[in-house]
Amino acid sequence: MESVLMDNLWVIIGTFLVFLMLGGFILLEAGSTRMKNAGHIAGKTIFTAGIGSLVFWAVGWGFIYGEGNWFIGLSDFFYGDASFSGEGLAPAVDFMFQMMFALVAMTIAFGGFAERAKLSAYVIFAVLFSVLIYPVVAHWIWGGGWLADHGKQDFAGSTVVHLTGAMAALAATLVLKPRIGKYNKDGSSNNLAGHNQVFTALGVLLLWVGWFGFNGASTFEVADAFFGFVLLNTQVAAGAGAVAAMFVSWALTGKADVPTTLNGALAGLVAITAPAGFVEPWAAVIIGLIGGVIVVFSMRWFDQARIDDPIFALSVHGTVGIWGTLANGLFAVPAFSAGIGWGQPGLFYGGGFTQLGVQTIGVITSGLYAFVVAFILLKVMDRVMGGIRVTEEEEIVGLDLSEHGGYGYPENIPHPDDRKGA
Amino acid sequence: MESVLMDNLWVIIGTFLVFLMLGGFILLEAGSTRMKNAGHIAGKTIFTAGIGSLVFWAVGWGFIYGEGNWFIGLSDFFYGDASFSGEGLAPAVDFMFQMMFALVAMTIAFGGFAERAKLSAYVIFAVLFSVLIYPVVAHWIWGGGWLADHGKQDFAGSTVVHLTGAMAALAATLVLKPRIGKYNKDGSSNNLAGHNQVFTALGVLLLWVGWFGFNGASTFEVADAFFGFVLLNTQVAAGAGAVAAMFVSWALTGKADVPTTLNGALAGLVAITAPAGFVEPWAAVIIGLIGGVIVVFSMRWFDQARIDDPIFALSVHGTVGIWGTLANGLFAVPAFSAGIGWGQPGLFYGGGFTQLGVQTIGVITSGLYAFVVAFILLKVMDRVMGGIRVTEEEEIVGLDLSEHGGYGYPENIPHPDDRKGA
Amino acid sequence: MESVLMDNLWVIIGTFLVFLMLGGFILLEAGSTRMKNAGHIAGKTIFTAGIGSLVFWAVGWGFIYGEGNWFIGLSDFFYGDASFSGEGLAPAVDFMFQMMFALVAMTIAFGGFAERAKLSAYVIFAVLFSVLIYPVVAHWIWGGGWLADHGKQDFAGSTVVHLTGAMAALAATLVLKPRIGKYNKDGSSNNLAGHNQVFTALGVLLLWVGWFGFNGASTFEVADAFFGFVLLNTQVAAGAGAVAAMFVSWALTGKADVPTTLNGALAGLVAITAPAGFVEPWAAVIIGLIGGVIVVFSMRWFDQARIDDPIFALSVHGTVGIWGTLANGLFAVPAFSAGIGWGQPGLFYGGGFTQLGVQTIGVITSGLYAFVVAFILLKVMDRVMGGIRVTEEEEIVGLDLSEHGGYGYPENIPHPDDRKGA
Repeated sequence: MESVLMDNLWVIIGTFLVFLMLGGFILLEAGSTRMKNAGHIAGKTIFTAGIGSLVFWAVGWGFIYGEGNWFIGLSDFFYGDASFSGEGLAPAVDFMFQMMFALVAMTIAFGGFAERAKLSAYVIFAVLFSVLIYPVVAHWIWGGGWLADHGKQDFAGSTVVHLTGAMAALAATLVLKPRIGKYNKDGSSNNLAGHNQVFTALGVLLLWVGWFGFNGASTFEVADAFFGFVLLNTQVAAGAGAVAAMFVSWALTGKADVPTTLNGALAGLVAITAPAGFVEPWAAVIIGLIGGVIVVFSMRWFDQARIDDPIFALSVHGTVGIWGTLANGLFAVPAFSAGIGWGQPGLFYGGGFTQLGVQTIGVITSGLYAFVVAFILLKVMDRVMGGIRVTEEEEIVGLDLSEHGGYGYPENIPHPDDRKGA
Repeated sequence: MESVLMDNLWVIIGTFLVFLMLGGFILLEAGSTRMKNAGHIAGKTIFTAGIGSLVFWAVGWGFIYGEGNWFIGLSDFFYGDASFSGEGLAPAVDFMFQMMFALVAMTIAFGGFAERAKLSAYVIFAVLFSVLIYPVVAHWIWGGGWLADHGKQDFAGSTVVHLTGAMAALAATLVLKPRIGKYNKDGSSNNLAGHNQVFTALGVLLLWVGWFGFNGASTFEVADAFFGFVLLNTQVAAGAGAVAAMFVSWALTGKADVPTTLNGALAGLVAITAPAGFVEPWAAVIIGLIGGVIVVFSMRWFDQARIDDPIFALSVHGTVGIWGTLANGLFAVPAFSAGIGWGQPGLFYGGGFTQLGVQTIGVITSGLYAFVVAFILLKVMDRVMGGIRVTEEEEIVGLDLSEHGGYGYPENIPHPDDRKGA
Repeated sequence: MESVLMDNLWVIIGTFLVFLMLGGFILLEAGSTRMKNAGHIAGKTIFTAGIGSLVFWAVGWGFIYGEGNWFIGLSDFFYGDASFSGEGLAPAVDFMFQMMFALVAMTIAFGGFAERAKLSAYVIFAVLFSVLIYPVVAHWIWGGGWLADHGKQDFAGSTVVHLTGAMAALAATLVLKPRIGKYNKDGSSNNLAGHNQVFTALGVLLLWVGWFGFNGASTFEVADAFFGFVLLNTQVAAGAGAVAAMFVSWALTGKADVPTTLNGALAGLVAITAPAGFVEPWAAVIIGLIGGVIVVFSMRWFDQARIDDPIFALSVHGTVGIWGTLANGLFAVPAFSAGIGWGQPGLFYGGGFTQLGVQTIGVITSGLYAFVVAFILLKVMDRVMGGIRVTEEEEIVGLDLSEHGGYGYPENIPHPDDRKGA
């Protein structure tokens, strides 16, 4: 009984840390965008977390983990009537931990909306994403759905959280079109630089700390203190990602760009999310290093493709999320499987292509589902709402003013009415 | 023994989280006020926490939990000589957890001082509040005093922490009078907008995380992983509060004001603080929603009453603190009482008006005590100190300069000596 | 077995908190320096943490705890092949906790580089410090080296972490020379004030929270909930330090300087780091108070000696780190030794000068080693790299631009190219 309670304690600690990631996202997103949108970006993280929490309580939990079919769960809405059996996780503890993953996925998706979407679009898409997109993919992989049946591995959510969020962000980016001033007529791109790198760096640090809960508590138990090993892998992968991205940026441009370096740390963390419990530390270093390299080139590729991704969600969570899921197929170690009931033989360990194949199918189907459904929903919203993007004038004055009635930094940015008089 | 140690581990984790709330308050208060006072507001949170810690060690703990009478405890000053019996909480762990509640209450009280009180007033009131106000109410309800004898419930401090802090803030607001420029001669009010909504939003997020410790560890034990249920209630109430306040603000003004939305999240958290362990999740949602609605109208009412409350402490912690305490009388469920030794039948569950009556008496007497004592102390201070408010000139240049000798943002705000030359 | 897992849980929680200290340092360092260097300072904390993590994995852990001799450990590189025996800490958990201490020591050292060192100097010194300096001192005291053999006590790293970091910072300060504009020709000093005291205050709060892990989890076990006592000492010492420094500053200058007050809280924390588990609460208050007084005079002394220490690392971590280590020799209580296997009789408790002597020798040898090796390394780097300091022009425009290609606050600081046109 004591060790069961310890498992619950561990998972609730993980819950706290994953929720703290929303603080990291507030800073990362606000820091990566411009002053005129900062209050909006920070504030919407709070109320969309509110919406997401209510939706998860109402239907999200039931769609993911309820009794259902290969596609979706269909019981236990409004938390259901579960009581703690004394074995495994208490339902409320599991509920809280899973809710935080749903909130993180939604927050990643909103990266694609930054600096140009209407507030009402956030409200409506927060509901739709939390009802129709996230729970379905989560059910497929974690809730006993069809990908779980085929042995898809996703230790802590490279696919379920990061890829799903990023694919919704991609759909938003495509529907919303680039920000005013981002691309020139000659095809060249302008750097609409974020306004506060201290926020960005602290945001990455908070996300890093939060990832200790994200990956660490995904063990769901304290047995053998195995979480320590998971966290060791997490740490060295994150470090390797930061170092790799910094040096690649330095080599390519002659300067060690700060946002790129910070994205490297996040890339290492995203990359190790799927394999954290299945690989050895040396492999974690390689996975993180490659993640840090990939993210730099992915950022450049999206920019050249004129896909405007202000928070770099597509590269950090999308491209690198795919790499992490596949890396698990490459590096997973049979020994861990035997010991703790997880993992399948990896490519380099005699498992052949089977696991890599399952991982690939999981990435493709999950990613496609998230992208297609998000794209259709946003297109319908765009039609029904008379556009999900603010007007050109509103975008120029900033969403703080247009959506919320006042600037987030009123002493730094004079109100337009005052400026007219000046 | 193991589960006893786990209880101690849980409560010390809660201690960390409640202390982190002071970081949330630094951001919330600094973000809600103007640049010229930001260094002062952030810095005073640290040194008043220092004062509060020393006072709690010297006399606070003894006044609350020492052997005494119906009014106050009178032993165990300077931590006393307690040693860990091996049962329940270790004295030092309990001491640390309770200290953090005292620091939070004091920080709430200082919301009423913002942007106009002398630094020396902070120093002196930090001592007086920690000696004469907080420990008395805490003894009444949590330390075996007269309200405890009558069955007053306060799961995690809606009354003890939030109402007590808010009533002291109200006294300060009335004694200090509104800030220069807040109200016009025609009775209309100006919005002296806070300078940084990213700070405010991140502050709310940190407070939200901290509340997981505030409410969660108020179980004082890990038995049945009941903390998970408490946290589930906490989460959905906070989410409901944020969503409700945003929509009310949107409906009333045509814009979804960011600070109002953020206060809604806090209102949900304050409202659920008393009933978190006694109600079902659907009731938590309703309690949070109503809290989010109440806070908006309370903010408007105080503004119209020309009571200047820069951080909204009166509405968030006062009005909603009262709502939360009463809501416990309305929604508490007998089933939880039976299972875990807490709670009394609520109004909607056949308990009649008894519990609601006790809650009401507790709110009135505790609130009156805190307000009256704070008001008298501040009036005496005002007389003895030649005023607890800075001069008009000092208020205009800002407290960073007048009380601390330099601006918190020296590169954003030129020093007056430099401005004269310009 | 359960209590062993609880020990592991406790230490991994401590790991999270110590890593969160890096977030505190991001804010403390960025807030204490000027806007033109803020992105650089925040960003370098992330990538040097990455470098430090990889180096600790490769050789740091082995140098500290591997089988070796009186000077250094020489096994278990690349994490080694340790598996969890089921007793004590799991190797991965211990590894993670110790890694965080190494990262904190390195971050302290970089305080001495602020606002003038080349980015490449950070990269190279991060490696050298993590390979040649920190692990050696840590092996001497914590890894079974010669000081451990002589009974040197360092509960949580006053010497190993704080003094070592500060001595490397001192070496850097001396090699790099003061910042442009810091000292006038007549010997007087200018206050190159940090740009954001909200960052500084929040940074101190995060460091304070992190210290709960730093000191608390240095018990390495949950037995007797002794961590509660350690944390009580930590809390009152920090509070006493903040209060003392504020009043001393107020008395000396007529104004309660905010950065000085904040340094007082840190001084209390540094001072109690060595004795946290060995002294009684009243002694912790005295140790913190004296720490808060010392830090103010130390800051003034370094300034008068024209040693430019932007983040006050020398005073906070160096001078006060020495005080903390010696204070342990003065105040340690035999009773605690008996009960928990730690501690030696202190000067005031009949232990005579023996323990104070060992502490003194430990401080001197460790400090000298760190300083001399850092000084030599930096001098060699200075020669080989054509200077470790940026050019005068680069320093004036700021390291954000010179080292990273763009300002951390691009909307607050116009790019020089734009300024030329203006």
